[in-house]
Amino acid sequence: MNPQLLSALRELLGEAGLLLNGDWSRYQQDWRGRYQGRALAIARPASTAQVAGVVQLCARYGVSLVPQGGNTGLVGGGVPSSDGSQLLLSLERLNQVRELDIPNLTLTVEAGCTLQSAQLAAEAQGLLFPLSLASEGSCTIGGNLATNAGGTQVLRYGNARAMCLGLEVVTAAGDVWSGLSGLRKDNTGYDLRDLFIGSEGTLGVITAATLALVPQPRSQMTALVTCKSLDAALALLSLARGRAGPALTAFEVMNAFSLQLVRQHLPQLRQDLPSSPWTVLLELSSSDDPAHTRTQFESLLNLALEDGSIQDALIAESLAQSRNFWQLRESISMAQSKEGLNIKHDIAVPVSRIPEFVAATDARLAAHLPGLRMVNFGHMGDGNLHYNVQSPPDMAPAEFLAHFESPINQLVYDAVGEFGGSISAEHGIGQLKRDELAQRKDPVALGLMRTIKAALDPQNLLNPGRFL
Amino acid sequence: MNPQLLSALRELLGEAGLLLNGDWSRYQQDWRGRYQGRALAIARPASTAQVAGVVQLCARYGVSLVPQGGNTGLVGGGVPSSDGSQLLLSLERLNQVRELDIPNLTLTVEAGCTLQSAQLAAEAQGLLFPLSLASEGSCTIGGNLATNAGGTQVLRYGNARAMCLGLEVVTAAGDVWSGLSGLRKDNTGYDLRDLFIGSEGTLGVITAATLALVPQPRSQMTALVTCKSLDAALALLSLARGRAGPALTAFEVMNAFSLQLVRQHLPQLRQDLPSSPWTVLLELSSSDDPAHTRTQFESLLNLALEDGSIQDALIAESLAQSRNFWQLRESISMAQSKEGLNIKHDIAVPVSRIPEFVAATDARLAAHLPGLRMVNFGHMGDGNLHYNVQSPPDMAPAEFLAHFESPINQLVYDAVGEFGGSISAEHGIGQLKRDELAQRKDPVALGLMRTIKAALDPQNLLNPGRFL
Repeated sequence: MNPQLLSALRELLGEAGLLLNGDWSRYQQDWRGRYQGRALAIARPASTAQVAGVVQLCARYGVSLVPQGGNTGLVGGGVPSSDGSQLLLSLERLNQVRELDIPNLTLTVEAGCTLQSAQLAAEAQGLLFPLSLASEGSCTIGGNLATNAGGTQVLRYGNARAMCLGLEVVTAAGDVWSGLSGLRKDNTGYDLRDLFIGSEGTLGVITAATLALVPQPRSQMTALVTCKSLDAALALLSLARGRAGPALTAFEVMNAFSLQLVRQHLPQLRQDLPSSPWTVLLELSSSDDPAHTRTQFESLLNLALEDGSIQDALIAESLAQSRNFWQLRESISMAQSKEGLNIKHDIAVPVSRIPEFVAATDARLAAHLPGLRMVNFGHMGDGNLHYNVQSPPDMAPAEFLAHFESPINQLVYDAVGEFGGSISAEHGIGQLKRDELAQRKDPVALGLMRTIKAALDPQNLLNPGRFL
Repeated sequence: MNPQLLSALRELLGEAGLLLNGDWSRYQQDWRGRYQGRALAIARPASTAQVAGVVQLCARYGVSLVPQGGNTGLVGGGVPSSDGSQLLLSLERLNQVRELDIPNLTLTVEAGCTLQSAQLAAEAQGLLFPLSLASEGSCTIGGNLATNAGGTQVLRYGNARAMCLGLEVVTAAGDVWSGLSGLRKDNTGYDLRDLFIGSEGTLGVITAATLALVPQPRSQMTALVTCKSLDAALALLSLARGRAGPALTAFEVMNAFSLQLVRQHLPQLRQDLPSSPWTVLLELSSSDDPAHTRTQFESLLNLALEDGSIQDALIAESLAQSRNFWQLRESISMAQSKEGLNIKHDIAVPVSRIPEFVAATDARLAAHLPGLRMVNFGHMGDGNLHYNVQSPPDMAPAEFLAHFESPINQLVYDAVGEFGGSISAEHGIGQLKRDELAQRKDPVALGLMRTIKAALDPQNLLNPGRFL
């Protein structure tokens, strides 16, 4: 490292704020072990002013930087390049809760706060911060916003974007934009907040955010139900939206093979419903009292049984049983990796086109490689499927990936394009899908994005080589 | 006009698509009569391709243009300059409903569709497009999105921004960005959609949008209640949010003088509640059956009577009575203008700070000019007040405006700034607040906005002199 830069960083950040050696694996490697980088150094600023100082120094010395939160991303967006030229900027020490305004239903936290600590800060006041992800214990609010994280309650509360009212951001010039705000309405200028949200650290470094909370629901009902087909599941979804309105907080779908893998690799998890082509996890959350919500839920399920959209239903009779249902859903990823390496797709299509998309794409895949096994599950209520492809039973996963990953990706992403869908519903672009994005995104949109990046980060200092 | 531009526009748009003379008052003057412009000509393209063609010609000949929807704006953003140099681009002929996808809950319409026609297209299928404004019969979807319109249901459904999934936009270069999308989740790139929404025609011309619908609520309850103070109204709001959750769809506040003006100037409107410092219009909309919603509503009002947050309550017993309550609320603007010219402020502060903000600012205004009368009403649930100032009874409105408009604006906007608020909650910037924005907005935000404008519209062709 340039000795002047080194000494300036040392002075700015102090001993604890600058790592020059040690075991950096938790910073340099993503948690799935797919990306391995090498950082120039690791900056751990403890204040927004220090973040601004780091960015200013990087700009002065022409060193690029990679912002990192909890390093739980799925697309390699927070891992430095492998040539040792990039400064890794960890936000982990910027982890204070700055303000909780109960009557305004807002929580202002620093970027390095874990999602769980934000959830707990809200819960302690009887409020809910509804973003919910598998990695919530270690992912951070800054990362959630930089990637516009999704999760299990998007159907009701939207993505991370929808839960953020204001941001504090360090720009590529090292200025601090003080855009924290507890306002629900503010039509004074371009929507900078939403431009930074989802930009994966390529336009600025998010240092703090004001989040919107909601009152805790007073009652919740969870069920597992079985459906003969995705058409039936879609009919159930329409029925549930009409009957439950905003009380419908989850509509997760799982195909039979997903649950078969869970049964096989995690036999300790109970599965009390008969196997079926499709199982749906349905949840209502209501500000009404529990007895009323139960009546509403049972009447919905009875209607669905009558009209044939569901075959069987199992209502959770306790919080423990509801957790078991969720555990089944959330164990699919692990069961799948125990079965062996596979090809993952985090895709979205319009909800109305899911049955048609799955039928058409399943058929094309089967024709391409007979014996393929589909691990198809996800947030059907949002049109978002984790449409994953497991090797035929008689093919070694390594061989499968080596020969089929690229053509299968092309086949699936072509189909997604035909159905007006997205090749990254909630995981983002990072390194993993950068080239796909360049090939598949509307060229006018790509041009606008490149123009914005060049205007806001003319030195290309912020997370270069990612995203665009 | 340059004869080559004229002949190219004629060829592109045909007879009906290009107005060169006639009575242009409905295009050139805003409906409140505050802004009077003069257009070079009026282009009325009938397709997105024609819009792109107009923009390309304007770029080639260096003529700037002003996009216009229903011309119902409140800040002069759609009225051309007075020097006759700008082409007025009316989207009124681009008014087709392109697609309604019922199971996906989406409606794709062209920019010139009126808000009401979008509402009706949804309603015909038992669905709701929840944006609702006084001008809905004549304002257009393009204008609603360009200004990120608010209205009476923001509390539940958000601003126009929150109801839009995708856009089609003609860029300043005359390219068409085909960003129409029925997806709830799509993390593939910068959020261009939200950058164009609220940019008031300065970054691109919105030609079509995909809107998110919701199922029609099955029941609705409306009440007028009286509160001794804004603190009491805030307590009622917190109680209602906790008890009713997302069923709370309106929380509109009106001070005593607002309703006194209605009584005086529109005596035909019934007011069956005793006068009180504050009256709140409260509404629940639910997917539950009417009997249950009524029980829930009555129990909420009983709690509020018990804890002293309200004094009196009048529940609408019919749809007609509910409409009467809304008519009271919506007649304040007219009653106010019958009383005489006044100084309007469309401001927002965090909901929690409304009582304190109003007390402090009322006191400063009273000290500045004794006898001032406050017409204070609006969307308290969103923190958005129409905090309007009427002359003292013994002062002629014209004299009042001439001498006090500027200092009163300064006083109010200073207070808004102190309380972390916005000087334009839902009406936008346009011509009216451009200079205030330049003075009061965070300088880093202003710098970012100017950089974006220069990058996306380097010739400054789109609505120049507005906004920034």
